[in-house]
Amino acid sequence: MSGEEAAAQQPKTEEQKQDTKPEEDKQNEQQPPPAQEAEKPQDEASYKSLVLSGYGGYDKVKLQVKKGELVPKAGEVLVRVKACGLNFADLMGRQGLYDRLPSPPVTPGMECSGVVEGLGEGVTDRKLGDKVIVMNRAGMWQEVVTVLTSHTFLMPEGMTFEEAAAIPVNYITAYMMIFDFGNLRPNQSILIHMAAGGVGIAATQLCQTVKDVTIFGTSSASKHDAIKENGVTHAIDYRTMDYVDEIRKLSPKGVDIVLDPLGGSDTCKAFNLLKPMGKLITYGAANLLTGQKKNLMAVAKTWWNQFSINAMQLLQSNKAVCGYHLGYLDEEMELVGGVLSKILDLYKQGKIKPRVDSVWPFQQVGDAMRQMQERKNIGKVILVPEAEKEEKKEEN
Amino acid sequence: MSGEEAAAQQPKTEEQKQDTKPEEDKQNEQQPPPAQEAEKPQDEASYKSLVLSGYGGYDKVKLQVKKGELVPKAGEVLVRVKACGLNFADLMGRQGLYDRLPSPPVTPGMECSGVVEGLGEGVTDRKLGDKVIVMNRAGMWQEVVTVLTSHTFLMPEGMTFEEAAAIPVNYITAYMMIFDFGNLRPNQSILIHMAAGGVGIAATQLCQTVKDVTIFGTSSASKHDAIKENGVTHAIDYRTMDYVDEIRKLSPKGVDIVLDPLGGSDTCKAFNLLKPMGKLITYGAANLLTGQKKNLMAVAKTWWNQFSINAMQLLQSNKAVCGYHLGYLDEEMELVGGVLSKILDLYKQGKIKPRVDSVWPFQQVGDAMRQMQERKNIGKVILVPEAEKEEKKEEN
Repeated sequence: MSGEEAAAQQPKTEEQKQDTKPEEDKQNEQQPPPAQEAEKPQDEASYKSLVLSGYGGYDKVKLQVKKGELVPKAGEVLVRVKACGLNFADLMGRQGLYDRLPSPPVTPGMECSGVVEGLGEGVTDRKLGDKVIVMNRAGMWQEVVTVLTSHTFLMPEGMTFEEAAAIPVNYITAYMMIFDFGNLRPNQSILIHMAAGGVGIAATQLCQTVKDVTIFGTSSASKHDAIKENGVTHAIDYRTMDYVDEIRKLSPKGVDIVLDPLGGSDTCKAFNLLKPMGKLITYGAANLLTGQKKNLMAVAKTWWNQFSINAMQLLQSNKAVCGYHLGYLDEEMELVGGVLSKILDLYKQGKIKPRVDSVWPFQQVGDAMRQMQERKNIGKVILVPEAEKEEKKEEN
Repeated sequence: MSGEEAAAQQPKTEEQKQDTKPEEDKQNEQQPPPAQEAEKPQDEASYKSLVLSGYGGYDKVKLQVKKGELVPKAGEVLVRVKACGLNFADLMGRQGLYDRLPSPPVTPGMECSGVVEGLGEGVTDRKLGDKVIVMNRAGMWQEVVTVLTSHTFLMPEGMTFEEAAAIPVNYITAYMMIFDFGNLRPNQSILIHMAAGGVGIAATQLCQTVKDVTIFGTSSASKHDAIKENGVTHAIDYRTMDYVDEIRKLSPKGVDIVLDPLGGSDTCKAFNLLKPMGKLITYGAANLLTGQKKNLMAVAKTWWNQFSINAMQLLQSNKAVCGYHLGYLDEEMELVGGVLSKILDLYKQGKIKPRVDSVWPFQQVGDAMRQMQERKNIGKVILVPEAEKEEKKEEN
C-alpha cells in the first residue's frame, strides 16, 4: 500500500460535528496530504481509502479517494476488498497508543477479505478470482490492497466476506492464547473478560472444542443471553458485581486460565485468581480506553497499577504469566498462517462461527469505532467499502 | 513421621572433621533432641532416621536411631524404605534456603521407595507387600515411614527400588514444566541447563517422546558423552563457553523453551533467548549454592540480578514466564499423582529410564550431598538405609 496522495471524499457526519475539538486536535495532528476533489475524474483510476490523519478522536480517520492504480509487485497480489475488520488495536492506534501502527497519515486495518484481481510476477499459488482472507500490519481499510501472497489465505466454501474479515485477528489471538500459552485441557476452567467482544466470542467458541471446560465470561447484563448462547457457562455482570467474588463463590480454588485484555489492576486480580499451574495471559490494556481521546489519567493509573512479578514469586506460586499481542508477531507469518489454517479447519467442521455485530460503510467508520469503544458490540464490527451494504447493519 | 527423640549413630567421618566450623554452626543450629545410645536395646523397636539438626554444612544431617514403633493411622500405610532420592531442595533446605522444609530438627527427604508393611484403619487400596513409590513434603530419609495412601504409587513390574526413588521429584518436575507450562510440540527447541542432573536427565528423556525436538543441554565437558547418549542434540560446556552465543550460532532466532534451574542473571538470559511464543520456566536458584553453607554474597547477587518483568513488556514480546516448584504443590496430590501415573506409563513403554548416578548408605549422606552439590553426579543420587548396599556405588 502506497499512495499518500489522497482525496477526502468524506462528507461531514453528525459524528464528526459532535466530536471534533479543533484546539486539542491540532496538537496531535500531523498535516494530512492535500485533499483532492471528491468527484474522481472519469478517465483516471482511483480507490477509496480510510486514512488516519493524526492522533485523536473518531474524526481523525477520514475517507479519501486516492488517485492512481495499485499494481502488485513480484510475489504480491492485488485484492479487491469486500470487508474489513475493526480491532481494539485500531482504537488504540487512533489515540497514539499502539506503536505498531506507522505514523499518520496512514491507512489502518490489520485484516480484510476480498477477491484477487491482479497477480504480481512469479505468483503461482493464487489465481484471479480467488476469494481470500488478508492479514497485514496496517493498510487494509482500503478499496483495493496489494499484499504478499503469504499474507493471503483462501476462504473456505460458504464463508461470507464479513465472516472472513471477522476471523483473523480475533480467532488467531484467541487460539494462540488458549492452545499455545494456555494449553487448555479437558475439565479446566477459564475466565474470559469482555466475552461479548470479538476475541471473547472467538475464545468462548474455541474453548468448547475441548471437553468439559467451564467458562466464566464477563459482560454487561444486557449481553448475558448472547454470551450464554455462545457458550459461556457463568455470565458475570462486571458493572454491578465483583467478578473475583463471583468466581470464588462458584470455584473457590480459582481458575486455570485467565485471558486478560484489561491491564492495570485487573492483571493482578487475574494472577491471584489462578489455581496452581494456572496461566494468566495478558493481551491488551483496554483500561486505557476511557474515552475517544487519549486519557492521561487512565494511562497513568493503568501504568501505576501495572502487574509486575519476579522469578521467586512465580516459582513459589507455580503459575505462568504470558503476554500476547498478534501485532508484534508480524514477522512470524509462517507461525501465524499455520494457526489460521487450523482455525479455518474448525470453521469447515462447523465448530466455530464468527459472529458479526454490525457492518458499516467506510464513511461511517467513526460510528463503527464508537460502537466498539463504547462496548455496544456483540461480536465483530465490520467495515465495507461500498455504501450500499449499509442495510446489513440491521440484519444483525 | 513423628519421633524427635533420636539416637546419634553417626561416627565422625573425614567429611565432618574437614567441614565442621563450630563457631558459625552454633548461630544457625537449633538444639537437636538428646542423643540416645547408638546400640539399640534388643527388646525395643527402633528405626534409623536421618535428621537435620540445624542449618549449615554437610555434617548437619546426622544418622539417628529413633526409639519406638511407627504405627500407621487411619488411611495411612507403613512403608519399609528401600531407597530415597536426594534433591536440590534438600541441599537448599540444609542451608536454610528452602521454606517448605519444616524447622530443624527434622527428617528431610521428599521421595522414597519401599514395601508396604502395615495398613492403617480403612486402607483398602494397598496391601501388605506392595512395592510403592512414596512422595511427601519431608521425612522420607528414614528406615520406615508412615504416609497417607494417596502419597503412595504402585511400582511397575521390573522397576528397581533405586529407579523408583529416582523418579518422583525429577520426572514430575520435568514433565509438568515441559508438557504443562512448556506445551512442547514437534519441531520445537529447548534449552536444558544442568543436563546431567536429575531433572536434566529426566527432561531430556521426556522431550524425546515428542517428534523432532532439538535439545540444547549444558554440562561440564566431561559429561558430554553421557548427556548426548541420553538424547541431548547439542552439548554445551557452560564452563568454557557462553551458552547464549553457542545457541545463537546454531539457532539464530533462539529457542522455544528454556528450563531455568539457575536463577539470577541466567533467568534474564533465558528470557532473551526465547523465540516469539517462547516459554521460560524457572524452577530453582542453583546459583545460590556456591558452597556447602549459605553464602550471603551469592544470595545477594542472585537476588539483585533476579529477573522481574511487567505486563506490558511481556505483551510486546509475546513470551511466557512460568515458575515451577513441586515443593509448593504438596496440597495438590491429585494433580501430581495424575502426572506420576503418566510417567509410570512412559516407563512401562520403555520411553524413559531413570539414570542412577550413585547409591549411598544413610551414614554417608554427607558424601552423597557433596556429590550433588559439587555437580559430580550424572543422574540421580540415591540414599539407602542399609550399609550393605554400599557396593552398589561402584556399579554405576
